Order: sequence, then C-alpha cells, then structure tokens
Amino acid sequence: MQTVTIIPGDGIGPEISTAVMNIFEAAQVPVQWEERNVTAIQGPGGKWMIPPNAKESMDKNKIGLKGPLKTPVAAGHPSMNLLLRKTFDLYANVRPCVSIEGYKTPYTDVDLVTIRENTEGEYSGIEHVIVEGVVQSIKLITEDASQRIAEYAFEYARNNQRSSVTAVHKANIMRMSDGLFLRKCREAAENYKDIKFTEMYLDTVCLNMVQDPKQFDVLVMPNLYGDILSDLCAGLIGGLGVTPSGNIGTNGVAIFESVHGTAPDIAGADLANPTALLLSAVMMLRHMGLHDHAQRIQTACFNTIQDKRVLTKDLGGNAKCSEFTAAICERVQDLD
Amino acid sequence: MQTVTIIPGDGIGPEISTAVMNIFEAAQVPVQWEERNVTAIQGPGGKWMIPPNAKESMDKNKIGLKGPLKTPVAAGHPSMNLLLRKTFDLYANVRPCVSIEGYKTPYTDVDLVTIRENTEGEYSGIEHVIVEGVVQSIKLITEDASQRIAEYAFEYARNNQRSSVTAVHKANIMRMSDGLFLRKCREAAENYKDIKFTEMYLDTVCLNMVQDPKQFDVLVMPNLYGDILSDLCAGLIGGLGVTPSGNIGTNGVAIFESVHGTAPDIAGADLANPTALLLSAVMMLRHMGLHDHAQRIQTACFNTIQDKRVLTKDLGGNAKCSEFTAAICERVQDLD
Ligand SMILES: CC(C)[C@H](C(=O)O)[C@@H](O)C(=O)O
Ligand SMILES: CC(C)[C@H](C(=O)O)[C@@H](O)C(=O)O
Repeated sequence: MQTVTIIPGDGIGPEISTAVMNIFEAAQVPVQWEERNVTAIQGPGGKWMIPPNAKESMDKNKIGLKGPLKTPVAAGHPSMNLLLRKTFDLYANVRPCVSIEGYKTPYTDVDLVTIRENTEGEYSGIEHVIVEGVVQSIKLITEDASQRIAEYAFEYARNNQRSSVTAVHKANIMRMSDGLFLRKCREAAENYKDIKFTEMYLDTVCLNMVQDPKQFDVLVMPNLYGDILSDLCAGLIGGLGVTPSGNIGTNGVAIFESVHGTAPDIAGADLANPTALLLSAVMMLRHMGLHDHAQRIQTACFNTIQDKRVLTKDLGGNAKCSEFTAAICERVQDLD
Repeated sequence: MQTVTIIPGDGIGPEISTAVMNIFEAAQVPVQWEERNVTAIQGPGGKWMIPPNAKESMDKNKIGLKGPLKTPVAAGHPSMNLLLRKTFDLYANVRPCVSIEGYKTPYTDVDLVTIRENTEGEYSGIEHVIVEGVVQSIKLITEDASQRIAEYAFEYARNNQRSSVTAVHKANIMRMSDGLFLRKCREAAENYKDIKFTEMYLDTVCLNMVQDPKQFDVLVMPNLYGDILSDLCAGLIGGLGVTPSGNIGTNGVAIFESVHGTAPDIAGADLANPTALLLSAVMMLRHMGLHDHAQRIQTACFNTIQDKRVLTKDLGGNAKCSEFTAAICERVQDLD
C-alpha cells in the first residue's frame, strides 16, 4: 500500500477528486490518500510558500495528485501552480494527447506527447524597466536544464514504446538560447540511437499540427513553447477536460494534475467531468509501476465515453458527475 | 499608373511573380512594375544591407510585392526577411486567414486576421552568455511600438468592417513586458468604442483556435506570438500556399509577400501555386485603394479554386502553374 498526497483544489476540485478516489476504490488500487490543501502562506521575510504540512506530505510520499487551483487575487501572490513547480523542482511537464474514440473532434488518431521544460526559459520571472517605456523580460536557458529535459524526453520515448522525438525551437531567431537548447537535444539524441530525432521550428510545428497531427510522436521544447503547444494539442482531442498532465521533479517527486480551471459556475453542483483528473491519475499509476490498474481504469473510462450512454454535459450527455463516476466504477469491476 | 517594386525572389519566386503580373495585366490593373533583386550585400564596416537599388526603388515607390527568399547559408548572413523588416521599419505584419470555398480543411467559415508586432519582442536579437552554460535572450517591449501596433489593429478593424480586436498575451507570466503591451492595447481600445475589445492568454487562444476559430476576428500580439499564431491559422485554411501577408511600415512603405518557402524541388518546373502571392497582391491593391481590381482578381482566383477543374498539384489538381494562371486570367476578363 503506497500513500499518495491528494490536493483536491478549488471549485470543482473536491468533486472530481472524490470521483477519482471512488474509482480507485472500485479498482482496488493499492493506494491510500493523504489529503492536503495548498493555499500559499507567507513565511519569514514575506516569502510565499506552500503550507509546511503539504510540503512535508509531498516530501514523504513523493507522489501527488492535484485538482485545479484558483488564481490568487491578492497582489503579489504567486500562481500556486508556479510555486509548486518551483518548490519541488518539477522540471518536466508531460502531456499525452490521444484521440478518444467516441468523442468527436475534427481529428482522429492523434497520439502524441508534449514534454515541456518547466523551470526556466520565458518563465524566469526576471524583468526590468530599462528606461520609462522600455521593458525587458529575460528568457533564461541553461545547459543543465536543457540537458535534463532532453534526456528525460528520450528516456520517456524509450520507456513508452515511442519511436521519435522532435525538438521544437526558434533557434533561427534566438540563436544562443534556443541554440543551446537544441544542441543539448542533439547531444542527447546521440545516446538514443533507437529513437528517431528531428528538429522543427515552433511555427512550422503549429502549422503542421493543425494540418496533420498524426505525424508527431514525442515533442520536447522550452517552457513557453510547451505552454502553447500543450494547449493547442489538448484542443485537437477535445480540450482540457479530457487531457491529463504530469509534472516530474527531482528526488523522485512527481505531481499529476488536471490542467483545466476550477469552473466556479458549476462547483458543488455534481456536474463536473472528472476525466482529466482521472486520466492524470492513470498516468500516476503508470509512473508508480501499477500498470494493470492503470490499464483497467483507462479502459473503463474510455469505454464509458465510447458507449455514450452516461456522459457529463461537457462530453455531450446529461449525467451527473456521480453518475458518470458510477458508470466507470461498474466497468472497472467488470474488467476484473 | 502607379509603380510597384517587385522582388520575384528565389526558387519558385520568378514563376509565381510572372503569374501575378499576367493576371494583373488581364485585369488591366493600373500598375507598372519595377523589378529588383535583394541579395544582402555588406556595406562599410561589414554591415549587411539590402542592395541600394532595391532600397531606392522601395523608398521611391513605397509599395512592394515580394516572392519567397531563400535562407542564406553564409555564416553571419542575416535572414533577408528580417533585414527587410528592419530596413523599412515594417512594424505590422497582417495576415488575413479566410476559409476558401472548395478547398476542404477540417474548418469552415474561418475569417480572422492576425496582426503581429514585427520589430521587437523576442526578435530583438539581444542575447548573452552569462556564464558558461547559462544564456539569456532579451525580449524587448516598448511603449511606442506597443502603442503603434495596438492603434494599427484598431484602425485596421475599423477600416475593414471588423467588429472585435483580441489582444493575445502572457501577462500572467511576463507581467512587465506583456503587461506593457496589454496596457497599450487597453488604452487604444478606449479610443475605438465601436470595436469590441477582449484579451486572452496565448495558450487559451491556441486551444480555442483549434476548437472553434469562428469566434475570432482581429487578433493583435507581440512578435513571437504572431509568428506562431499566424502559421497556426494558415494551417486551418490550407497552409502557406493560400495565405497572403502584408507588412506595413512607416513613411507609407508596405511590402506584401507570400510567406511560403522557395520550393527548390519544383522550381522552374511550372508546377508552383501562385495563390499566396496573388492574394498578397490583392491585399496590396486594397492598400492602394484599388478595391475594384482587388475584388475582381480575388473572385477570379476563388472561383477557379472552387470550380476544381484547373488546379495545381498542391491544391489537389494536376494543372501547371501557367494553366492555373490562364484560368484565372480568363475569369478576370469575364468579370469585366
Ligand atoms: C496557470 C499558468 C501559470 C500556467 C502556465 O502559463 O504555465 C498554465 O497555463 C499551464 O500551462 O499550466
Ligand atoms: C523566416 C523567419 C525569420 C520568419 C520569422 O520567424 O519571423 C518566418 O517564420 C515568418 O513568419 O515570416
């Protein structure tokens, strides 16, 4: 029995977290939950930090599952998502985008993974006013972080039976920064001769992506490009409501999360769609080596969607969150 | 009779330029051409510049039409496209993306325009190695350039019967730089109460764009975001082979261009598709106030595509460039 930290989050977060916990129980997943809330607090010197009991829980359990967090409104309050990435050095954001049979979008057979450098680049937070009316933001690219994410991408490809990695860049414009990132990808490629390596400009990727996403497999890129491309790809398969996400950090820490919003308009009304959080939990199980449980839950979820009888509103049905959850639980048990 | 500088460019450039000139002749457009080549030369002190006779021609005629230019291979040689933007302070890159009836893509009824700040941002060219393995690129945002592009976008919307402008940004991350850009958009919006103003994160725009592009009208954004989004949108309607582009500068200078590549594999074989350059020339005519000629040529082009009988290979047919051109010429004359 492993313990996982669960951060239900805000808005619809608690409902969809309950849904996932119920499905885990139905599937008899050998996991127990430790619930924590993360509302940033100010430590000594006014530094924003996540509450110590959440930090300790993650440090101990290593694995976390997280619902959506509301955007802080207080001035100077950092984004909780950014703070979590920083606190646990979650350097790789991994988002598989796979077409869901039965959920119609203009694209079929999408099956790709975006791997985003999650700690630096355009997200360095370093900005200056040079003179009145002239501002600069620093995009910071380091050899270490680039190498780490490049190697992660190839490892991921190899461990997940994927055949190619594409480095996404604008080294024609940012010759030094994206140039360094690209060089590290090329170097990593040398050690993974079993994986095909290609490079492509970000603009070209975007164009090709909407014309024929089937050509892509694993994509690796700096922070901002990943922010953009992961959302674009989510759009191809049905949006953030059905797209899982995992954040891989150092010291074995990893946090899996749904990346949609808190949907305050339907919070508490038993109308939310738990799919994104559930599929994130499935990623988590694979990460933990619990492949059978992962597969069973994923199949139950996809079959329920394909079957079309019990669907939440955003998926085109009129079932409640709890009914959709119950339908998945039933299938999970049948698959035993 | 106005004189326009034509830069045929490399690869398929000369063929598609000839096609456009033939169609202009058939439509009796009151324009005469002054042909110039632009291969960068090194001036005093090794500074790269476009040839003086091309610069003089543009300074005199103000309006240019440009085919694709090959990427320079010589070390230190700048991108000709970037050099042209710089030389003529082409601050606004305008790309209308409109679904073409008869040319099937997963999307119908796309009708939007991306307006990209074309002179600064991530394209500042300022980069440093801080210490071995740590590189920074500077994203430069100025009040002047942001205000100029914001005002251009609203002017464009008003002059082209468009009803909304969306500012695309990541001011949640780059608070100062994108924050400044956004502020200037908000300020400009105050002076254009007839145009609806909205703001949206770049990642959200990408997601919404592939899910429902119909919701967008005019979009305005910093340089790199425009690079990405304009290509993405081109992909929605059929790619760079059918997407026009205009670069608006100061002192009345404007250069219209196809943004596809030089296609060296088919250069000289009479197989190229002149549509992107032709539609860029149509934008140019509108810019010059020659609305009737613009409309007639555009209709002839779209009708030829819709008719499906005479199409170049990339459009799904097997006609030669010259045959496709002749078909458009015929229609232009019929529309007289
Ligand atoms: C919430 C926001 C800070 C975040 C980002 O920009 O990275 C989000 O868009 C994401 O992709 O996780
Ligand atoms: C050729 C290249 C420098 C250019 C850019 O990155 O701006 C191109 O992608 C474009 O959009 O015109």
